[in-house]
Amino acid sequence: MARSFISIADLTATELKTLVANGIKIKKAIRSGNYKNPAPLQGQTVSLIFSKRSTRTRISTEGAVAYLGGQPMFLGKDDIQLGVNESLYDTTRVVSSMTSAIVARVGPHSDIQALAKDSRVPVINALCEKFHPMQAVADMIAIQEAFGAFSGLKVAWVGDANNVLHDFALASVKLGMDISIATPSGRPVSDEIKKLIANNAESGASAHYTSDPLEAVKDANVIVTDTWISMGQEEETQQKLKEFAGYQVTMDMAAKGGAAANWKFMHCLPRHKEEVDDEVFYSDRSVVFEEAENRLYSAIAVLDAFVVNKGVVE
Amino acid sequence: MARSFISIADLTATELKTLVANGIKIKKAIRSGNYKNPAPLQGQTVSLIFSKRSTRTRISTEGAVAYLGGQPMFLGKDDIQLGVNESLYDTTRVVSSMTSAIVARVGPHSDIQALAKDSRVPVINALCEKFHPMQAVADMIAIQEAFGAFSGLKVAWVGDANNVLHDFALASVKLGMDISIATPSGRPVSDEIKKLIANNAESGASAHYTSDPLEAVKDANVIVTDTWISMGQEEETQQKLKEFAGYQVTMDMAAKGGAAANWKFMHCLPRHKEEVDDEVFYSDRSVVFEEAENRLYSAIAVLDAFVVNKGVVE
Amino acid sequence: MARSFISIADLTATELKTLVANGIKIKKAIRSGNYKNPAPLQGQTVSLIFSKRSTRTRISTEGAVAYLGGQPMFLGKDDIQLGVNESLYDTTRVVSSMTSAIVARVGPHSDIQALAKDSRVPVINALCEKFHPMQAVADMIAIQEAFGAFSGLKVAWVGDANNVLHDFALASVKLGMDISIATPSGRPVSDEIKKLIANNAESGASAHYTSDPLEAVKDANVIVTDTWISMGQEEETQQKLKEFAGYQVTMDMAAKGGAAANWKFMHCLPRHKEEVDDEVFYSDRSVVFEEAENRLYSAIAVLDAFVVNKGVVE
Repeated sequence: MARSFISIADLTATELKTLVANGIKIKKAIRSGNYKNPAPLQGQTVSLIFSKRSTRTRISTEGAVAYLGGQPMFLGKDDIQLGVNESLYDTTRVVSSMTSAIVARVGPHSDIQALAKDSRVPVINALCEKFHPMQAVADMIAIQEAFGAFSGLKVAWVGDANNVLHDFALASVKLGMDISIATPSGRPVSDEIKKLIANNAESGASAHYTSDPLEAVKDANVIVTDTWISMGQEEETQQKLKEFAGYQVTMDMAAKGGAAANWKFMHCLPRHKEEVDDEVFYSDRSVVFEEAENRLYSAIAVLDAFVVNKGVVE
Repeated sequence: MARSFISIADLTATELKTLVANGIKIKKAIRSGNYKNPAPLQGQTVSLIFSKRSTRTRISTEGAVAYLGGQPMFLGKDDIQLGVNESLYDTTRVVSSMTSAIVARVGPHSDIQALAKDSRVPVINALCEKFHPMQAVADMIAIQEAFGAFSGLKVAWVGDANNVLHDFALASVKLGMDISIATPSGRPVSDEIKKLIANNAESGASAHYTSDPLEAVKDANVIVTDTWISMGQEEETQQKLKEFAGYQVTMDMAAKGGAAANWKFMHCLPRHKEEVDDEVFYSDRSVVFEEAENRLYSAIAVLDAFVVNKGVVE
Repeated sequence: MARSFISIADLTATELKTLVANGIKIKKAIRSGNYKNPAPLQGQTVSLIFSKRSTRTRISTEGAVAYLGGQPMFLGKDDIQLGVNESLYDTTRVVSSMTSAIVARVGPHSDIQALAKDSRVPVINALCEKFHPMQAVADMIAIQEAFGAFSGLKVAWVGDANNVLHDFALASVKLGMDISIATPSGRPVSDEIKKLIANNAESGASAHYTSDPLEAVKDANVIVTDTWISMGQEEETQQKLKEFAGYQVTMDMAAKGGAAANWKFMHCLPRHKEEVDDEVFYSDRSVVFEEAENRLYSAIAVLDAFVVNKGVVE
């Protein structure tokens, strides 16, 4: 069975460091125009099965496949609906027999697990309800770029307890950083994920949980958030604004909480003003556009390791 | 005018054998990692005009174009609607002037005929209401793999009288196999198609028609069916279940009908349990996943012959 | 900042002539099978952000990217909605950091301007409410093919005052042709565009405005129109037919108006009979299918200049 990539928890610390280092190398080569394209996937097709649309994930993954010489094939919810009209097992067998890898954005975590179990080719998780590993690799590249190293850093998550957080936290502690996670009291990180994070912590790195954003950002070198508000549902919006009162990242909030002098801001986009104001978002502290661009290099590094190199991350 | 591929009836027996043999060669090369990719379609675009979505047909065709070094361009019903907003003639002239081939999945057979008539480049039928030739080539590859040769075999179709059957039957008799076709009494094979099948029979191969599935599977080496039930229309479902009573392929049904000891099961997917039960579908008798994978090799062999080699099948 | 291509007005007369000449060279090479494909965009992705679907623009642009060795990524309105869910600025920053060029079909002209302003990579206008420059280059290729040269020719536009006209007129006067433009009296060319056309006129070429189609076609070597009727809206249709009475291009209309003996007909498609009758549209005077095919060569020439050669048109 091919080795798949479902969560940062699938990686050793060395493997994660290697993916980050490879991503940075690829970025330098591409930006300087020195990227060698040996096209290891020439003639091969990588299927992107996306049950939900996604700008950044799609563009970065299709771009990565192209950089490796392969042909991306985007299959949206109008093209394939997993488990509808035929069993997920049948679809997995068929798609994996005709393509070189499956990059999947699914709803239930069990869908990505089932895909990985029955696929003949590597399955790359491009977001499920639990994990978002290629985003976490891109984020770690951004932190490495901003600070040069991971050890001794403290990162703070201020937002919802979601899939992006899960792999971000796993990556943080796996690379030796402390993480402090603030989520509203009605939205705690699950015990299962807390345990997973603890099990992935390297060399004394620790995770701390709170519902107070100011507590979380204390001494933080990095403040991260993510979308917690959805467009258009007015009633839900009012409820969310109440739940997330105090969670908007601002210069004032960071100062009050006592963030480190050199703190940087991250957000995986799309961004709404409720999560972070314009002053922070478009400031020099914000590395959001580097972070977004890093999605491309993260995807190239991941596909190179799991598809070209058959799961050998080196 | 470019040579198009609309139906198995367009091929000589030798040409069909060549496509099957080429498909098998390509399969071995790709599976063993020894596929040479000279990329004969490099820089060229192949348009896929699909008025209906299709997982297997789309993936296999896009994959085939990529293997040949070309760029597939998928145009679904939201992208192009044949005959809407401009004449089919105008669309054909324009698309065929900017792409190297048109692979089309249409409704009416007259649409694929019109495309082929006015196109400057080869038109490959990827399913119309009458024919599905690339499926039939994939099926013949599966039979060759399972039995080593065609002559002396008997195949049985147990299901609806549809486009998949038409080209499957044409291919079977063209390769010297007998075919017995069971369709419900209210759904007979048309006289026009019966005549076409008779005209395509090589060396004493014959087609037999019945409404009794047990009669059809007598001595059969291959039992084939296809989807005859649609999702979601409850009333139609009840009516169909009544019409197709006794048509579900099961071990018991094959035994009762007196199938050959070595009988294999085929289905072009997607599959529903009404047509075949789990025991048969997931058994060693079932070659459905090989058959599905063969769609890729069938498409490569067809595009190589009709697009790269300009209609010379060799 | 990368040089973008928003309108014919962005080009010098020499640059426009070069694009036309390059398009013709590329056409000859491709048609004769002698096109060398050095694949300068190998491994790179070009995003096509289309807020509205378009057969010809999409096929020609995707085909052009493929000819240059790159990977086209089509993003329709279900994939990206500019300015919805995140700011246009954020989307522009992100997409331009992961792709080598943005080809955009937008509504408001301000959208294409904003894209070009904030993008790190070249933005190519594939139609906005004001301009359609790649169409105009294709049209000029068709005129060069039909007449061998531009100077001394008179072209006539008979139709609506729209984006296609704007760049067609700009290209015409920039290449030294006279243009006479007939639009219904309630649909005049705006003063802003008239001024732009005047500013782009080379060596005595002039633009003349009228609401009388017969006056416009007097001595014209080329009669051009475009779709002015939309499908399905019955009430609007009746109103439009009244407004455009006398605008249908026919042999009789051209004769009455006194078109030049060698007049040719052009239309950027899709075509409806209200604009031009079958006799003209399918006659030897009509170069509409050459014009449509030229979209491919126009797109290759434009992408080669603005993406491969970084805005150097040579």
